[in-house]
Amino acid sequence: MRKKSLEVCLSPAMFAQHADKEAVVVVIDILRATSAICTAFANGARAIIPVTTVEEARNKKLDGFLIAAERDGFVLDFADFGNSPFNFTSDKVEGKTIVYSTTNGTSIINMASSCSAVLIGSYLNFSALSDWLISQEQNVILFCAGWKTRFNLEDTLCAGVFANKLLESGKFNTNCDSAHAAIDLWHLAKSDLMGYIEKAAQRSRLRDKGLDDCIGYCHTFDTTTVIPVLRGDRLVAL
Amino acid sequence: MRKKSLEVCLSPAMFAQHADKEAVVVVIDILRATSAICTAFANGARAIIPVTTVEEARNKKLDGFLIAAERDGFVLDFADFGNSPFNFTSDKVEGKTIVYSTTNGTSIINMASSCSAVLIGSYLNFSALSDWLISQEQNVILFCAGWKTRFNLEDTLCAGVFANKLLESGKFNTNCDSAHAAIDLWHLAKSDLMGYIEKAAQRSRLRDKGLDDCIGYCHTFDTTTVIPVLRGDRLVAL
Repeated sequence: MRKKSLEVCLSPAMFAQHADKEAVVVVIDILRATSAICTAFANGARAIIPVTTVEEARNKKLDGFLIAAERDGFVLDFADFGNSPFNFTSDKVEGKTIVYSTTNGTSIINMASSCSAVLIGSYLNFSALSDWLISQEQNVILFCAGWKTRFNLEDTLCAGVFANKLLESGKFNTNCDSAHAAIDLWHLAKSDLMGYIEKAAQRSRLRDKGLDDCIGYCHTFDTTTVIPVLRGDRLVAL
Repeated sequence: MRKKSLEVCLSPAMFAQHADKEAVVVVIDILRATSAICTAFANGARAIIPVTTVEEARNKKLDGFLIAAERDGFVLDFADFGNSPFNFTSDKVEGKTIVYSTTNGTSIINMASSCSAVLIGSYLNFSALSDWLISQEQNVILFCAGWKTRFNLEDTLCAGVFANKLLESGKFNTNCDSAHAAIDLWHLAKSDLMGYIEKAAQRSRLRDKGLDDCIGYCHTFDTTTVIPVLRGDRLVAL
């Protein structure tokens, strides 16, 4: 069996060069969108509708949906709650469909939707998602959200641990420099992940806004086995 | 004295997010454009005119300039020579003005020209250029050419060694995740740079075309003290 290709895209600005209609795309935006989405499904959410603009989110409010929406870490005033994974508790989300709009994450989910499948990745669902990717016979793109089209460390490290496991399975190979860099940075950081992430700009931004209570949680492996996947206009559990 | 900012841009696709009119930009495209440009000046070239399109290069031929032009490693048929630094020997380039067009490097030089200054960086002029940058009181962007808007390892490592020296000088600080990543990858690679670079995609591309004779040379520190700088439409020695 010919090995499938593995690529890491380090920023939305580079996605066009990586895009491959045959590939499964894993969106990684761990501080905080994809960690929050995994948490919502772990707590029983029925579906999440990612929308890009504030206006779309506001219009959906009128349709009666629960709204999670933030920009640069701040909750939008018409929203029910913001982007912290701690907001998506069972009592709020179980059985509900949530409209979700964040600074980066949701526009990237829509950007990836031209590919074969779009999945949501984080440390929280690492083993379940990586095992599923290995079980498929498809190319994989690990798509880091970055920050406003820039590279970021936290998503790159998470892409690195996924890339490392996929290559170790023997089912994939890569000729992608970004994948090598992500894996090497992961190995460098893994023994003290919280210490390493101290130098990430997003770490400082969240601390400055008092939003850093979830950093440890967002770097916890395997709190759930849910694999959110895009079906039409919404994410559902695979 | 307030410290100046240091950033690393990992791909032309992300340059718009890093661009800063106050900053000095160092273009890094070590395999092979910026190594070749440093070599040309070390061997006495008077000036190098970077042009983006094949058509511009061909028109300049009619004006009697020496033409160095390649696409994807192949010399264009009307050119006097291609992109290997070994072409830019004293007997060919001394006192000459050369029109130069490559797959990546020259378009990036022009992209950076909105900033305060554009300099050409490589391992070959590392100490001279880094000492000069430290002596200035200006923000610095280390601009990796990458490959067709993608991230590459070889330019990132070179940015890492520059970034490391600039930060160690105490004159700069950084809040740029790309700078941290480049420095960490540099420290990981430096003890066996040629071994590390084996996994770079450009290493394989050059080998496949028989163009890899210059890899070791392009990773050699301080063969020259020239600092190419953009003045108007051309590069000259600072």
